[in-house]
Amino acid sequence: MFDVLIIGAGPAGMTAAIYAARGNLKVGIIEQGAPGGAMVNTSIIENYPGFKKIDGASLSMEMFEQINDLGVEYFGYSVIDIEKVNDIFAVAVEGSEEKLLAKALIVATGTKNKILDIPGEETYRGKGISWCAICDGSFYKNKNVAVVGGGNSALEEALYLADIASKVYIIHRRDEFRGAEILVSKLKTRTNVEFVLNAIPLEFCGTEHLEKIKLQNKLTAEVFYVAVEGCFEYVGQQPANQAITKLGIIDERGYVIVDKNFATSTKGLFACGDIVAKEIRQIATAVNDGAIAALNVIKYCKE
Amino acid sequence: MFDVLIIGAGPAGMTAAIYAARGNLKVGIIEQGAPGGAMVNTSIIENYPGFKKIDGASLSMEMFEQINDLGVEYFGYSVIDIEKVNDIFAVAVEGSEEKLLAKALIVATGTKNKILDIPGEETYRGKGISWCAICDGSFYKNKNVAVVGGGNSALEEALYLADIASKVYIIHRRDEFRGAEILVSKLKTRTNVEFVLNAIPLEFCGTEHLEKIKLQNKLTAEVFYVAVEGCFEYVGQQPANQAITKLGIIDERGYVIVDKNFATSTKGLFACGDIVAKEIRQIATAVNDGAIAALNVIKYCKE
Repeated sequence: MFDVLIIGAGPAGMTAAIYAARGNLKVGIIEQGAPGGAMVNTSIIENYPGFKKIDGASLSMEMFEQINDLGVEYFGYSVIDIEKVNDIFAVAVEGSEEKLLAKALIVATGTKNKILDIPGEETYRGKGISWCAICDGSFYKNKNVAVVGGGNSALEEALYLADIASKVYIIHRRDEFRGAEILVSKLKTRTNVEFVLNAIPLEFCGTEHLEKIKLQNKLTAEVFYVAVEGCFEYVGQQPANQAITKLGIIDERGYVIVDKNFATSTKGLFACGDIVAKEIRQIATAVNDGAIAALNVIKYCKE
Repeated sequence: MFDVLIIGAGPAGMTAAIYAARGNLKVGIIEQGAPGGAMVNTSIIENYPGFKKIDGASLSMEMFEQINDLGVEYFGYSVIDIEKVNDIFAVAVEGSEEKLLAKALIVATGTKNKILDIPGEETYRGKGISWCAICDGSFYKNKNVAVVGGGNSALEEALYLADIASKVYIIHRRDEFRGAEILVSKLKTRTNVEFVLNAIPLEFCGTEHLEKIKLQNKLTAEVFYVAVEGCFEYVGQQPANQAITKLGIIDERGYVIVDKNFATSTKGLFACGDIVAKEIRQIATAVNDGAIAALNVIKYCKE
């Protein structure tokens, strides 16, 4: 029996683990992917204070070693079901007959990538279409690729790909970017980056592998093609709430509603990081949520 | 003229600087002490995610280099006065005839150390009494010292001093600690650490230099002395609000009232970090506040 189980080992979940373990709680953390969550798939991080420049995998590993050193138990499982019986949370996981039990639970499942939901997307998933430049970028050395999106992720990953691919098209449905201007400026200095603005992706086309993207100019209605072998989609995030939908703690957009202590309306159930209903989702904000949630879990466990 | 001036270069202020500069704002930061704020005087930091163990000075320097690289202008000045005239903030600083001007202002002045306010404290300030183990600990190699307090800072600095001094008395007015249990456990394994609990400091005594502390047991009313040459006070924090009292943004305890965007009731005036009215004050929470404040300042400047 754990004092607290944390679902999700991104920066929020791992920070919660650090604080809970330092408060002498018995802590377990459950993560279906690699430690780091969305962070592990980020090529370069330059806006987490303390690191001028670090790749997401390295920062993930630093945090993972930190929780390991503190004796946090790590479970590389998917969560199938969560039940609360007599003030105890029972978490059913894939790969273990026995349920994991805890007095308190912290949901830190984060977000997952949105898809464009257009023809050809399923066909060429893994055959040209990717959601992770750091994972798949190296396949496109000296080839043409596209990045779809206009936020920080799209711009950061486009910069990363510009060092690998022969050409990077940035396809964006508006003519302005949500991402930081410093990134736009940097991209404009790259001779192999081309902005394709006011452009709506209509279809992914190819034979065995992706060959081109069919687009429409939003202003002129003109339909045209961009020839690329790789396409990286960064069109936003959606809450990774599959395991928690039945707990009755999510809002109409699918994010978890918490109070200022990161407690949900269910006693002993907390949430932190990108899964929480809020406006700004950064590593710098995730660590805040994790620390506050854990300090309140410590109070809850000692009540 | 700056887009934004930030007062205070602790983790909150420096994070705000990182985010504002990455948003292409012209950013100035004003700090009367060393970059890092309270962080720079912390011996060892083990709860900031990404660093298993780092001294406060090094983490401060990492963040300082990060803002330098982004072109943030640094002013090593004290703030004397702040005025808002026609939507422009004018900051008068010691050491410059000219006022610094900005469209937006972020207050990140943090907290400063509380004092015990007992006889002898002023007399032996710098002659045995210190508020910074990392600064002054080395003066007490193989000598007896005391730490006063029961929070994380007191416990962390006691651990640090236990490696230097021959004996460390931890003087605390209760018999329980607010600080993390992992720290209490670690201290209990140290043979040169002695807990002096339920003890109220009454007076600092000595001749030229501190020689002993007069204490009273809260339960038995017994008065007794602890012979030490050094005493490190960690009895809490108070808001460093001297420069901002007249702005009408502080609550009855002296902290700045902000909304969820870290905006105050005055247009263009934001605050972040430990100076903000809130419950938990950590480096992990300061970076959150700084990021959110800056992203909202960027919006404000572009309105």
